[in-house]
Amino acid sequence: MNEFEVIARYFRRSPRSADVRIGIGDDGAVIVSRPGSELVVTVDMLVEGRHFAANADPEGIGHKTLAVNLSDLAAMGALPRFALLAGALPSSDPQWIAAFMRGFDALATRYDVELIGGDTTRGPRTLCVTAIGEVPAGAAITRSGARVGDVVYVSGTFGDAALALAIEAGRVPAQAHERSSLEHRLDRPEPRVALGIGLRGIASAALDVSDGLTGDLGHILDASGVGATIDLAAVPCGDVMHSLLDGNARAVALQALLAGGDDYELCFTARPAMRERIAALARTLALPLTPIGVVTAEPGLVVRDERGETLSPLPRAFDHFG
Amino acid sequence: MNEFEVIARYFRRSPRSADVRIGIGDDGAVIVSRPGSELVVTVDMLVEGRHFAANADPEGIGHKTLAVNLSDLAAMGALPRFALLAGALPSSDPQWIAAFMRGFDALATRYDVELIGGDTTRGPRTLCVTAIGEVPAGAAITRSGARVGDVVYVSGTFGDAALALAIEAGRVPAQAHERSSLEHRLDRPEPRVALGIGLRGIASAALDVSDGLTGDLGHILDASGVGATIDLAAVPCGDVMHSLLDGNARAVALQALLAGGDDYELCFTARPAMRERIAALARTLALPLTPIGVVTAEPGLVVRDERGETLSPLPRAFDHFG
Repeated sequence: MNEFEVIARYFRRSPRSADVRIGIGDDGAVIVSRPGSELVVTVDMLVEGRHFAANADPEGIGHKTLAVNLSDLAAMGALPRFALLAGALPSSDPQWIAAFMRGFDALATRYDVELIGGDTTRGPRTLCVTAIGEVPAGAAITRSGARVGDVVYVSGTFGDAALALAIEAGRVPAQAHERSSLEHRLDRPEPRVALGIGLRGIASAALDVSDGLTGDLGHILDASGVGATIDLAAVPCGDVMHSLLDGNARAVALQALLAGGDDYELCFTARPAMRERIAALARTLALPLTPIGVVTAEPGLVVRDERGETLSPLPRAFDHFG
Repeated sequence: MNEFEVIARYFRRSPRSADVRIGIGDDGAVIVSRPGSELVVTVDMLVEGRHFAANADPEGIGHKTLAVNLSDLAAMGALPRFALLAGALPSSDPQWIAAFMRGFDALATRYDVELIGGDTTRGPRTLCVTAIGEVPAGAAITRSGARVGDVVYVSGTFGDAALALAIEAGRVPAQAHERSSLEHRLDRPEPRVALGIGLRGIASAALDVSDGLTGDLGHILDASGVGATIDLAAVPCGDVMHSLLDGNARAVALQALLAGGDDYELCFTARPAMRERIAALARTLALPLTPIGVVTAEPGLVVRDERGETLSPLPRAFDHFG
């Protein structure tokens, strides 16, 4: 298949939404934005050998490529609407592309995200998604709104994806059934779309945790000009993580929990008065929303361990150029 | 420098436009679209070794990475507004990044395009730009509006960029001064932004020629359900191309002229009655707009050579997976 056949077969589709005036197949897509709304745009690039292994399941890569972008939109409180997909591929392997698009489309369909454009070229396997979401004017949740006295919350649990990598690398032991559920967290992150929308008017600041909890929370603190103290014991995690934290793989576990990355949970801050609304949101979504600390005036992040002592140094966040 | 230092130093800047509510530095950018306007979105990915050489001037790559996207917006008749830049880089080489951003920013500044988001990661050098433009509601120029009897036009001249590559590869001889002007066409394409905007209400269909004239014109014909006949002698080209077409490198020259790619000129169709308005636009822009043929009912593209005979087979368009 040549480039145009690949595009025609796997990427081209007719516009579905009335807001897509022109979809895939022209020089650009044309979208109509609804009066009173603003558009949120985000882009993420995933590289083979860095974000996924060369032999990774292409369907999972298709899922994750879109999921990490929807996670960014969720962190802004945006409703996902459209996506563009650019990809460099080593060859036009129809099976790989078909499986990738199955994973991509399944997630897109669940969140009613319409693919409106893209680009394909030959090269080292690299996927780049641009996602476009919508918020009511002025309702986007930023990183810069945290205030002293706000409570720091996180959704879901932390460290599972990083544990999966540590287990794959042989750095910690695990049972087969544990391994599979951790790998699911790594390969099929679930963007917290409904949570992000639910947090409009509740959260004072939010972001999605992709590079590790402490590093990413640090971005909220920097952008807001504040600090925070969080309790290690309050950071929600799964059973495997719990047992490792109590055992002799504690260092690896701490690294995974606080700085491992690939969690794709939301971290947000809110005034203490929002406690009931947040608890109600957690029940509605059947998703744990856990207070883990408070915003302080003193810049910097302090993590207190199980005995109330300051953890120092903090595990380092993932750095793409480190 | 780590990833965040790279971003802070070269990519982050404060929002300039009042329509950028949130710019670089959050999970997504938030943009306001003007009432009565629609947004045009396009994405292009450039890969080292495919779209540019490993030792190519990074400033030129910065220019071209943005230029090819603005060219797509121009083909839709859109005013460029915003861009997002995702890049995989083999290392955080500050000099390379600084030079790349000089080229990118110089072009962005000329067209008042604001960088509102991005992503950086380590990987084989790959650049992906998402460009967002604006058109009055319903005014976007598509590929599908060509009608039988329309005149086919092109802007500028064709084949120079492909000739530059052919000369580099030693397939055709050239003087040093010729080589430098052809290379400029290859490395510093000028997006036809003002032309695209000027063609609103004039062109019935348009696209930008990135993969070769005949192949790309074929996309207009396919999308519009028509055919066309064009005259080889009418296709505008530079002096070097002219002399090669008349000499013994005719085959290479024909390939470059009709299917070479990297021209980044616009090809458009218009009713014959638009002739005067198009001539006036050409004068205003000081840019040749040349009629090269007519749209016909019979599907397919026919190219007549200098003696009026059908050129067959046509040189093949560039295919990324060919």
